[in-house]
Amino acid sequence: MTDLPPLGTAPLKQCPTASLAVPGFTAAATHCGLKKNGRPDLALIVAEEAVPAAGVFTKNKLAAAPVQVCRRHVAEGRARLILANSGGANAATGQAGLTACLSACQGAAAAVGCPLTEVLCASTGVIGQVLDASKPAAALPDLAARLAPDGLAAAAGAIMTTDTFAKMAERKVEIAGRTITVGGMAKGAGMIRPDMATLLVFVLTDAKAGSAALAQVLREAAGESFNRVSVDGDMSTNDTLLLLASGRAGGPELLPGDPGLALLAKAVTEVCQELATMIVADGEGAAKLVRVVVQGAPSQGQAREYCYAIAHSPLVKTAFAAGDPYWGRILSAAAALAGQRAWEFEPARTRVWFNEILTADQGLGLGKEVEERARVDLKEPRFEVTLDLGLGEAWDWVLTCDLTQEYVAINVDYRS
Amino acid sequence: MTDLPPLGTAPLKQCPTASLAVPGFTAAATHCGLKKNGRPDLALIVAEEAVPAAGVFTKNKLAAAPVQVCRRHVAEGRARLILANSGGANAATGQAGLTACLSACQGAAAAVGCPLTEVLCASTGVIGQVLDASKPAAALPDLAARLAPDGLAAAAGAIMTTDTFAKMAERKVEIAGRTITVGGMAKGAGMIRPDMATLLVFVLTDAKAGSAALAQVLREAAGESFNRVSVDGDMSTNDTLLLLASGRAGGPELLPGDPGLALLAKAVTEVCQELATMIVADGEGAAKLVRVVVQGAPSQGQAREYCYAIAHSPLVKTAFAAGDPYWGRILSAAAALAGQRAWEFEPARTRVWFNEILTADQGLGLGKEVEERARVDLKEPRFEVTLDLGLGEAWDWVLTCDLTQEYVAINVDYRS
Repeated sequence: MTDLPPLGTAPLKQCPTASLAVPGFTAAATHCGLKKNGRPDLALIVAEEAVPAAGVFTKNKLAAAPVQVCRRHVAEGRARLILANSGGANAATGQAGLTACLSACQGAAAAVGCPLTEVLCASTGVIGQVLDASKPAAALPDLAARLAPDGLAAAAGAIMTTDTFAKMAERKVEIAGRTITVGGMAKGAGMIRPDMATLLVFVLTDAKAGSAALAQVLREAAGESFNRVSVDGDMSTNDTLLLLASGRAGGPELLPGDPGLALLAKAVTEVCQELATMIVADGEGAAKLVRVVVQGAPSQGQAREYCYAIAHSPLVKTAFAAGDPYWGRILSAAAALAGQRAWEFEPARTRVWFNEILTADQGLGLGKEVEERARVDLKEPRFEVTLDLGLGEAWDWVLTCDLTQEYVAINVDYRS
Repeated sequence: MTDLPPLGTAPLKQCPTASLAVPGFTAAATHCGLKKNGRPDLALIVAEEAVPAAGVFTKNKLAAAPVQVCRRHVAEGRARLILANSGGANAATGQAGLTACLSACQGAAAAVGCPLTEVLCASTGVIGQVLDASKPAAALPDLAARLAPDGLAAAAGAIMTTDTFAKMAERKVEIAGRTITVGGMAKGAGMIRPDMATLLVFVLTDAKAGSAALAQVLREAAGESFNRVSVDGDMSTNDTLLLLASGRAGGPELLPGDPGLALLAKAVTEVCQELATMIVADGEGAAKLVRVVVQGAPSQGQAREYCYAIAHSPLVKTAFAAGDPYWGRILSAAAALAGQRAWEFEPARTRVWFNEILTADQGLGLGKEVEERARVDLKEPRFEVTLDLGLGEAWDWVLTCDLTQEYVAINVDYRS
């Protein structure tokens, strides 16, 4: 399991990356009036010219207006800019929402000077309110005038909703003698099991690659990052993951099959993993970041489902919050899934670890002394739980967080 | 939808039935030392002689020792007694747990004077601790000596864990000129989405029916009650539902196909529905009892899955807690499921009601004034949410409750 990404060591609610710059891109952010609290709510990210782009979107059938528009535009393969707002999801808003979204996009296109189809867009916030397009429209000329290479951090701040910190990550990678930059920003799903939270992620690079290659890189990166946090199971109306490549680093175009593209994919994956980890760490009310590993499974698909069954169990999550190495809840969550699916499951073959501490063997607890040792590890803000099913060689992992009273407090108050 | 069972009007945390008596059965309860807090933790329910019995058990593959034993014994078709304890689930306890369970059952058999195979058993509490069989063993002779027809209420009290009140329900029904009694008791799953909570339900009747007929009645009743609360999706290691029939009401045996058996099934179903409703109302920290109805679905199976997707969404449940008629979260939870399953879903055909108040039509909100009216209804402890998909004629419903900070507080502290 040496290829598990690091859980990190920074305090949970903190981003190790304070600034971001990717050659070929500029950005700016402002408060245009969508958020009631006066905080930044509009971000503009612009490439010097139309550049190859790829996107991954929510599967939610109530896809928001900006998702519908962005999906259509990114399919063209080239984009000039990303217009993103917080303070309203513009989801479940029907034709009026689409009209408002297109109007805002048109404003951005005019301010930057590009065709409408080169505008990518994303929104986040409360469902069911039509975007007031007059607000971004009024702000866009000034925003376009303030575009700067160091504006990406401000953009990361402007897409926050219940996030407690702006999320950025960066990798430099040497490809064919050139230093390539991959920089990403994300807005947290914000919640433990975000049935309807929104995940916005924008990854930029100066690598030279076409949109088909970028699409492949993005799928791979999403599979190893955002699809392994307890997010993808229940995608929101607005989830949007975009990758744009300015090509400013120069050199030959990276094509599918090139070793260079694999290096780019690795860097994009690492950026996405770092952002995904931050998103879980910043889960609403979360105080613990937990990686759930299930091994000894008959197939990776089963291992993944077991991971989610454990990661989604409110009882497991409250035990995490308590720092309680309650192996019985881990086993029972898995065994309940096995019962539903009529999968093979043999309690006597199972083992449970908290970090390196074996706490249950052959399906039986190893006693209070061992649990007391595990409790020390579970006081830390980051730890790992491993369940071995003893049935095969396959394994998988997901990232999750604990369930605290703070989570409930945040979501009870969300619209009030 | 006239066949929806009533949501009830009693305060949520209160049982309208204070006592229980079913001819042919006696019961007693005591504190034998399994619970640390000194509360009753051992219940004994005894029939005058071995009587027909049927059971439904958890599908969890970590089935507790008492489930394994009870499943075997009930398969014999006749039972003399039920021995139930709280203060320990005796789950994930391997061979030692089985030995302890059989030892406790043997003690009950000896105290009452019946073969071991006529002993049904059930346990609830923390997973992973072997039952200390010496405690029930020491208490059983006295318990057997105190058996009385009015002891059923005490038994209902002794199976409680985090339940805030004992749950009992009773129906009298006229069958072929005789008054038949159906009385039931339940111990709550206790939690909102009890991945691992325990549901214990014992239903007794003086009707005359064989074990095959009882099994049919029980399956039907479970389908209309416990399988419609957000419980069955994730059965615990210990879930046990038993039905015993003393036959003391006399008359001819009720056989499959008899109108009399249908009447009995209706009474058992109503008792189970009343108990299931109490279980949800007593969900840990629950302050709202909510029925989720999904109609206009292409099939009942889809309708049921939509109901659970809505009922299991933490965001929907926190909105319930807030009394917020946030139709957007309802729609989005459903649309997320549709996306995962690649089911047809057309936002423009959907409608959402809170009780009788249409809050969203054609997938769009009907505005603040309507929401303010819905808010008044959502202040009540019991309400209904209806989603119409506009796609077909099928529908289904489930019962659920809200998600409050109290839920988290209870489960964080559970083992400490």
